[in-house]
Amino acid sequence: MGAIRIAIVGLGKIARDQHLPSIAGNDAFTLAATVSPRGEGLAEVPNFRSLDALLADGPAIDAVALCTPPQVRYDLAAQALGRGLHVFLEKPPGATLAEVVALEGEAASAGVSLFASWHSRYAAGVAPARAWLADKMIRSARITWREDVRVWHPGQAWIWEPGGLGVFDPGINALSIATHILPRPFFLTEGTLSLPANRAAPIAADLSFRDSAGTPITMDLDWRQTGPQTWDIVVETDAGTCTLSKGGAVLTLPDGVEAREDREYAGLYARFAELVQTGQSDVDVAPMRLVADAFLRGHRMVVDAFED
Amino acid sequence: MGAIRIAIVGLGKIARDQHLPSIAGNDAFTLAATVSPRGEGLAEVPNFRSLDALLADGPAIDAVALCTPPQVRYDLAAQALGRGLHVFLEKPPGATLAEVVALEGEAASAGVSLFASWHSRYAAGVAPARAWLADKMIRSARITWREDVRVWHPGQAWIWEPGGLGVFDPGINALSIATHILPRPFFLTEGTLSLPANRAAPIAADLSFRDSAGTPITMDLDWRQTGPQTWDIVVETDAGTCTLSKGGAVLTLPDGVEAREDREYAGLYARFAELVQTGQSDVDVAPMRLVADAFLRGHRMVVDAFED
Repeated sequence: MGAIRIAIVGLGKIARDQHLPSIAGNDAFTLAATVSPRGEGLAEVPNFRSLDALLADGPAIDAVALCTPPQVRYDLAAQALGRGLHVFLEKPPGATLAEVVALEGEAASAGVSLFASWHSRYAAGVAPARAWLADKMIRSARITWREDVRVWHPGQAWIWEPGGLGVFDPGINALSIATHILPRPFFLTEGTLSLPANRAAPIAADLSFRDSAGTPITMDLDWRQTGPQTWDIVVETDAGTCTLSKGGAVLTLPDGVEAREDREYAGLYARFAELVQTGQSDVDVAPMRLVADAFLRGHRMVVDAFED
Repeated sequence: MGAIRIAIVGLGKIARDQHLPSIAGNDAFTLAATVSPRGEGLAEVPNFRSLDALLADGPAIDAVALCTPPQVRYDLAAQALGRGLHVFLEKPPGATLAEVVALEGEAASAGVSLFASWHSRYAAGVAPARAWLADKMIRSARITWREDVRVWHPGQAWIWEPGGLGVFDPGINALSIATHILPRPFFLTEGTLSLPANRAAPIAADLSFRDSAGTPITMDLDWRQTGPQTWDIVVETDAGTCTLSKGGAVLTLPDGVEAREDREYAGLYARFAELVQTGQSDVDVAPMRLVADAFLRGHRMVVDAFED
């Protein structure tokens, strides 16, 4: 198989910061085109105003990476799968759970690979944390994810609209790690979502989960943090404390600290190449299911309006 | 195999109106006990204040039917599965999607049957509607579910709490039918939830769905209807109109009307017996996933306070 000819759809911050360098750094891929409705393409490859235009007039491609806001992702993905293209979905994989499940069926029918990516699962500390926790007795887990939305999502209105996740946009990263490293499935027992008076999506959340063995897991999400940012998961076990910090990049175990080079998106593209080459899909909705459950079951509290 | 010795947990309206007669009418089951915290049992069998008390001091049982509010169902189900009992869950199967998925895993580990029941799927018109629709080209579907909450849920505070579903408590019945009779999966594209100023759960909802072929499906839910009640699903096809009315009991096709005796809960218990006897589970979360998606993606609109 030659290099996978891939097009990036949605040429925003995440595409430029992460996808382009990772594609350039992986011999399994060659960037064939971009789609950006505003027409601000790259010098190296042709840009199209829409996926339609690319499919009609563009170079041959094998795959697309969808980096658009989640609210428009289903139509693009369905169209690409219908044309026999492999599809890489940025997180979250869609605006609803049901559309992601539908896409999974469409990928299977089309015989192509669908990858619902969770970049934080490829943070350097995550795989060793998972391996270390596998045989421990877990007493509790505490997730603290506090960041400054003005720094990370400047002026991104879609994130506050229904279908955008508000503070769960970063929070789902934490959940993608927690569902991966904790040995048993867990579910929400109680939660409060804080909604700015002028927004549809939460700016903070305080959630309690429990796993099937009764282990308590708490989650503190806040987008109003200024100064130092916090992305920590602390797991207490019978063999001591496991701390993942800096969003999963740094792992601290009772016998010391492991910090390796962060290769999240490089890891994602290596995985996508493997899926395409072996004819498989990888669609785990568990992190998104927990977010939907928080919207379903959580108390809502109105807080101060948020202005960008 | 002898008759399945079953206990009913939660002796409220649905248990008395539906479960008890259906168990009495099915030779595959024998009612062994009831659990009702208020101690108002039946004359025929012993009553216990809790499942704990039943398991400690009660007669031998093979299965439980959980008719409690969804917010407390997980713990009861997990406890029962852990004791090797088969479990029948009233709808909705839980307060969150993740807990239902967790239960599915626990049932598999315990080697017992878990049945997430959807009684409306057993309404008389549903199976023939599904068969008729299977080979038609579907142009649209319209769900109208309007009832008077004061008649159907008098004073049931739990239904308005987070984890209760508000108007989706009846609405999930419509979704359980629609997900069963329509040939393709569908997902929410837009929706508005109307929340009484003094309640956590919606009293009305206006939703738009689409299936993977682009078919529009709309849903109009309202709990403020007085006078005649409406539980209709109208499907337009290339071969004419299919109308399910009275909650699925009456089917009208282009060549006439079919109305048969309504045996919803008899059908559920026949299915549960079959699952137990064949060692299978039946857990389809599709209706609940659509409700979670509506909470996740829907716009919220505050409407007049609701007083019982």
